[in-house]
Amino acid sequence: MKSREIRLTRHFTGPVLLEYFETVEVDLPDPAEGEIQVKNAWLSVDPYMRGRMIGLKTYVDPFRVGEAMEGGAVGQVVKSNADGFAEGDWVMSMYGWREGWAASAEGVTKIDASLLPPEAYLGIAGMPGMTAYIGLKKMIGLKEGETLWMSAGAGAVGTAGIQFAKAMGAKVIATAGGADKTAFCTELGADAVVDYKAVDDLGAAVREAAKPLGGIDAYYENVGGDHLQAALDSLKDHGRMAVCGMIARYNDSEPLPGPTNLTQIVAKKLTLKGFIVSDHFDIYSDFVADLSSWMMAGKVKTRDTVFEGIEKTPDAFMGLFTGANIGKMLVKL
Amino acid sequence: MKSREIRLTRHFTGPVLLEYFETVEVDLPDPAEGEIQVKNAWLSVDPYMRGRMIGLKTYVDPFRVGEAMEGGAVGQVVKSNADGFAEGDWVMSMYGWREGWAASAEGVTKIDASLLPPEAYLGIAGMPGMTAYIGLKKMIGLKEGETLWMSAGAGAVGTAGIQFAKAMGAKVIATAGGADKTAFCTELGADAVVDYKAVDDLGAAVREAAKPLGGIDAYYENVGGDHLQAALDSLKDHGRMAVCGMIARYNDSEPLPGPTNLTQIVAKKLTLKGFIVSDHFDIYSDFVADLSSWMMAGKVKTRDTVFEGIEKTPDAFMGLFTGANIGKMLVKL
Repeated sequence: MKSREIRLTRHFTGPVLLEYFETVEVDLPDPAEGEIQVKNAWLSVDPYMRGRMIGLKTYVDPFRVGEAMEGGAVGQVVKSNADGFAEGDWVMSMYGWREGWAASAEGVTKIDASLLPPEAYLGIAGMPGMTAYIGLKKMIGLKEGETLWMSAGAGAVGTAGIQFAKAMGAKVIATAGGADKTAFCTELGADAVVDYKAVDDLGAAVREAAKPLGGIDAYYENVGGDHLQAALDSLKDHGRMAVCGMIARYNDSEPLPGPTNLTQIVAKKLTLKGFIVSDHFDIYSDFVADLSSWMMAGKVKTRDTVFEGIEKTPDAFMGLFTGANIGKMLVKL
Repeated sequence: MKSREIRLTRHFTGPVLLEYFETVEVDLPDPAEGEIQVKNAWLSVDPYMRGRMIGLKTYVDPFRVGEAMEGGAVGQVVKSNADGFAEGDWVMSMYGWREGWAASAEGVTKIDASLLPPEAYLGIAGMPGMTAYIGLKKMIGLKEGETLWMSAGAGAVGTAGIQFAKAMGAKVIATAGGADKTAFCTELGADAVVDYKAVDDLGAAVREAAKPLGGIDAYYENVGGDHLQAALDSLKDHGRMAVCGMIARYNDSEPLPGPTNLTQIVAKKLTLKGFIVSDHFDIYSDFVADLSSWMMAGKVKTRDTVFEGIEKTPDAFMGLFTGANIGKMLVKL
């Protein structure tokens, strides 16, 4: 079996360019003992991948130049030489931006494609959903009746977070850029929505929207920059912040200054907690249980933005930073 | 009895100037029912007071223009018309920058001047000591064997924090400005000391000093600015930060940008907790118990920087922002 794969051509800072990727066709070997051969159906592109392209050690090792990009993918087993895997099984792997692969079955997860569409395991039922859940449950400790500000509300984590927060009995203000995205946040159940591209003073707009909801108890940070500044100014005393990511900062060519109002951390007695999904698998079973019950109760919708064909994967990835996606950004093979 | 007092003449941002204060002599009335008349012996000047001079509501109301500055003071009862207070009793009040006062005894605390010198109740055994204790115990949750970076190590909170952290079995890196202050930090038991005025790259210097101590698990933030930037770069994964204050920022005429490296909060999964001493009186009895046992074991030293005479109080206060104090800054009357 032939497989095309996307390889990183160099480490870089600044904006993502197409030339940093190349498409290479390889022959997949037959699976050795303990291995399986898989034909991927869906690839995931995620903001955290940007950090691995810089070439510095962060919380994960950098991607290796000249090798296929690692990342979430789902597909079906073509040939199995590993216990517990049979031809036709749906699996999720971290083998990344490839049409197929033949490699160790260790760390590969079988998924139930009768329960959910397979690509949902890259979105609401996968890493972005789990990320939203951890932020709300463990970092913020969101309580019934509280008000959450979810930034990047129309993104993969944001769409999960809005719905999970509502299912937990909280009120939600969502921010997103543009009419389509804000409409989608409303559709997901957000009590108030602010289009950050349409306002001059984001903090003032969010505080105004929060008034009927009793102010903002917690902020879910996906954006950084002006959003973080606005959140520090807008949270109530003893506010909590889950710091999941700062996508507005990832493509900076050089580090830009942070908010001017960090003394609010003291003045308002705020708690900020940064986190990474992989540290929190201890609550994975809680996540599955809650998600299942919310889905059965009809409380969870999903929406994907889909690019087609392996060669479009870099475009899909670059689209994350220009706000091209509503819901989870995926590549369909 | 005559009493001179220091009044605020205006609200302001930017550097503190002498003209923002005036000294006025008043006649103290005889104490009415429930009141006492007190002759102060020591006045406290503290960095948090700067925030109350701006005129905006923060976690406490602003000082009122034309009235005596509020703040911690200790003195002796001259006349009592309140149950439980007798002539000669030592008391601590928040009635502030006055030679004496006659007012309600409510909220006034009797102190034991045989146990500790009375001025210690404005320092290690008072608000600064309690602040250090809360930061270490409740915000950071400092554990035996961990390494703490204490910023402003020679200040009132810092000197308490270094000694408390050592008493808790932790290792301490202290930063301070100048040879006298760093020598004092060493005298207090700090395992490593960095003079921030003598290094070009504070983060690099602190990380180098931390190497033999196994890296930095927690940071106690009193300073802001370059210290915060260095701390974000220097903490280990899952590092914790108690955000007590940012004295470097208090006299800014306009808000200055924050650190360029806030994405470290995510990358290193950091927790930052801002706090105010008055929210945490629930552990006051723990503080008193621990402090007493540490003092009896000879683990706690104090040192004060003393200005003499009520008219020097604004100078003492201004000295906080130029680093004029080693240990607690006090005014002796």
